[in-house]
Amino acid sequence: MDPQPSPADLVIVNCTALVDTTGESATFAPGTTIEVRDGRITHIGPDAAQPPAALEVIDARGMVAMPGLINTHTHAAMTLFRGAAEDVSVDDWFNAYVWPMEVNVGERDVYVGTLLAAAEMIECGVTTFADHYFFMHQAAQAVIDSGLRANLGSAFFSSQGPEGLEQSVAFAEQWNGKADGRITTCIAPHAPYTVHDDDLRGAADAARRLGVKVHTHIAEDIVQTQKSIETRGISPVEVGEITGVLDAGCIIAHGNGIVERDVEILSSYADRTGVTHGPKGYLKFALGPLTPIPALRAVGVPVGFCTDGVASNNTLDIFESMRITAMVQKQLADDATSFRTVEALRMAGPQSAAVLGERGRLGELREGAYADVILVDTSGFHCQPVHDLAAALVYSVQPTDVRTTIVHGNVLMRDRELRTIDRTALLAEFRERTRAITDRSHGRSIQDYQAH
Amino acid sequence: MDPQPSPADLVIVNCTALVDTTGESATFAPGTTIEVRDGRITHIGPDAAQPPAALEVIDARGMVAMPGLINTHTHAAMTLFRGAAEDVSVDDWFNAYVWPMEVNVGERDVYVGTLLAAAEMIECGVTTFADHYFFMHQAAQAVIDSGLRANLGSAFFSSQGPEGLEQSVAFAEQWNGKADGRITTCIAPHAPYTVHDDDLRGAADAARRLGVKVHTHIAEDIVQTQKSIETRGISPVEVGEITGVLDAGCIIAHGNGIVERDVEILSSYADRTGVTHGPKGYLKFALGPLTPIPALRAVGVPVGFCTDGVASNNTLDIFESMRITAMVQKQLADDATSFRTVEALRMAGPQSAAVLGERGRLGELREGAYADVILVDTSGFHCQPVHDLAAALVYSVQPTDVRTTIVHGNVLMRDRELRTIDRTALLAEFRERTRAITDRSHGRSIQDYQAH
Repeated sequence: MDPQPSPADLVIVNCTALVDTTGESATFAPGTTIEVRDGRITHIGPDAAQPPAALEVIDARGMVAMPGLINTHTHAAMTLFRGAAEDVSVDDWFNAYVWPMEVNVGERDVYVGTLLAAAEMIECGVTTFADHYFFMHQAAQAVIDSGLRANLGSAFFSSQGPEGLEQSVAFAEQWNGKADGRITTCIAPHAPYTVHDDDLRGAADAARRLGVKVHTHIAEDIVQTQKSIETRGISPVEVGEITGVLDAGCIIAHGNGIVERDVEILSSYADRTGVTHGPKGYLKFALGPLTPIPALRAVGVPVGFCTDGVASNNTLDIFESMRITAMVQKQLADDATSFRTVEALRMAGPQSAAVLGERGRLGELREGAYADVILVDTSGFHCQPVHDLAAALVYSVQPTDVRTTIVHGNVLMRDRELRTIDRTALLAEFRERTRAITDRSHGRSIQDYQAH
Repeated sequence: MDPQPSPADLVIVNCTALVDTTGESATFAPGTTIEVRDGRITHIGPDAAQPPAALEVIDARGMVAMPGLINTHTHAAMTLFRGAAEDVSVDDWFNAYVWPMEVNVGERDVYVGTLLAAAEMIECGVTTFADHYFFMHQAAQAVIDSGLRANLGSAFFSSQGPEGLEQSVAFAEQWNGKADGRITTCIAPHAPYTVHDDDLRGAADAARRLGVKVHTHIAEDIVQTQKSIETRGISPVEVGEITGVLDAGCIIAHGNGIVERDVEILSSYADRTGVTHGPKGYLKFALGPLTPIPALRAVGVPVGFCTDGVASNNTLDIFESMRITAMVQKQLADDATSFRTVEALRMAGPQSAAVLGERGRLGELREGAYADVILVDTSGFHCQPVHDLAAALVYSVQPTDVRTTIVHGNVLMRDRELRTIDRTALLAEFRERTRAITDRSHGRSIQDYQAH
């Protein structure tokens, strides 16, 4: 018997907790206490007369506690290029803007760009992001410093030679499980149209050996799928299958070009392979068909939300990805009663967690899950009255309604005050570094986009 | 000669002003001073060494000054029902939810609901709204009290008998030009499927006599158009033509069902008739075709942004309407280079003003225009760096980036502090009044929706 247990690290009291999204409607538990020890939720239940002893107590009266949001695919450091390639086609975006501009990116730029992305994500309630970029040691340092959780992959093209794959594997091996487990890793070939099958096989083998996933761009749009079928007779998803990438477990960005025959293939790997979905950029790029979410869900393939990089998406706001998805999916289904608010919240929670292989640990408020929690204030005019709390979260809240962001039990933002990031210093360095980063006068490019 | 002119009412200095959206790209003028007297912009130009004398001086360093946003069609008091009819079909939305719930709405509810809408709009930079609802004397009082600008129409059905039209006309006559000209009015038949042709003719005649517009729902979706053609051989737009509504000048909500033959008809009335567009609700309702914006623009018919009521749109945020429209229009056009950011800003400014018949007075920062100005802060992480200011406004800003809202030269919000509305008192009464407002146990309804 222990009459005086040691105090918890953190206790949240008086919140209305989003506790279940698996049913016909979302379940909220008012008057809830969440207790946190060693980065995990150790108890969630009704408020007691006295809050449990804790090193930090947050009174969340009037707030909704929900699982921290998960961005299943981004290139965080591309904050560097926000707004630098607008109103252009996909081809021009790659060849005329982004890949020439990326020649200018150095290690420190990636650190500062990722840290700015981290600050933006903390402010809008994103607690985990899956990042796919270059100079990833610097991105890892930004994760350590910001306190966020991330799955990190060091991107490579086969044009880099064998070193591309090698450094991606070495990075994954070195960093997996670091930062109290906040960092996990993946092998990150860029895409089947820039990485040879042999390198994809190597990526899959390494992923199996390290117990991580492959994170890659597959069937980003229908044009890529058509070109792949024309050129080699199989779709990008089928390339993923024959190279063992799907079998190893894969985070597929973005899958807008997933065709019917792919869905059946993907269903065989549904326990370890999922698809990320970030509609804002897709609409901006005028991509034709979008990720076939209902077909994928019907066969159990998880689909999660993402923002992609802000050079196309402009923001890192997963509430926005959720809102646009819900609206657009209703219209695509020609059914206003489809893609209900609970489905949107489920996709944001357990489904996004499943895409990263973290089901049960992320995306749900439950005992044993990581203590990644956000507190959302619905008292603003724009949310009132709250006839339907799920609808408020999906269709009304603004990013700034996220008052408090907690990752691994650490409070990264409380009442909109950042605790791990020095706003003034970060903005000053970021502005200085981005002044000339869009220069394309050198005439070089990191790669050529041909979509096959 | 007057060596010491009387001080201006208000001066904004050091802002970056959005001064033109009519060209190939948006024009911003850094280092700009805006001088305001008697509710109008009396001067806009480069900062002087000393700011002009004024009763209030706002130093807007680091801020973008842009024309206050215009919501060309809403039912402001429907804030009462936010979130109360989610994930339902259009038919159920009307017949099973909204029209039965509206039985519960009394005069004070409309006042409080409209005032809450006003608070929400001030907070997200909307300075003018076109409102179409019941108990409009109360809405007018909320406009007076909040300080916003509004075009108000008292809605009617022919099922009310002759009194419907009569009170709509009487309201328009009584209130037009009131509140220092901040209130203008219109005649507001609900729709051709709920108002007989004779009453539409009466509305058009009264509108001509009073010099105001007709504001009505026409061709809200393609189903309405199809039913109208089936039933009487002509489209809702043609009903608008034969009843004189288009000739009198009409604000058309929502026009998603405008078909090819309608576009040519509308082109004849383009100088006085325009269309409102609020895609969020349309997508949520899974409406098939959306307002044919490119076709309407090609023949000079103005199309402006709206939110409709929050019972379908959930928010009154015109930045959101603009963002969704830009994204969705690119995809519909199958062209990522279409609907550029300048086009979105033009639609938000002069085009929305034209829908209300206020071109030159609203939607532009220019001498002689109403001093309806918002100051937007782009220094947040989510807007940085600002490689493209127009893109930041269209794709990155959050409602809370609107720091200051000015209408008719009056500062309604400064640095996020509301000056005309008591937040605590309003929220308390609003919450109390909305507690039972969704009750449908009485089994009654204000009308029956058959879409013809």
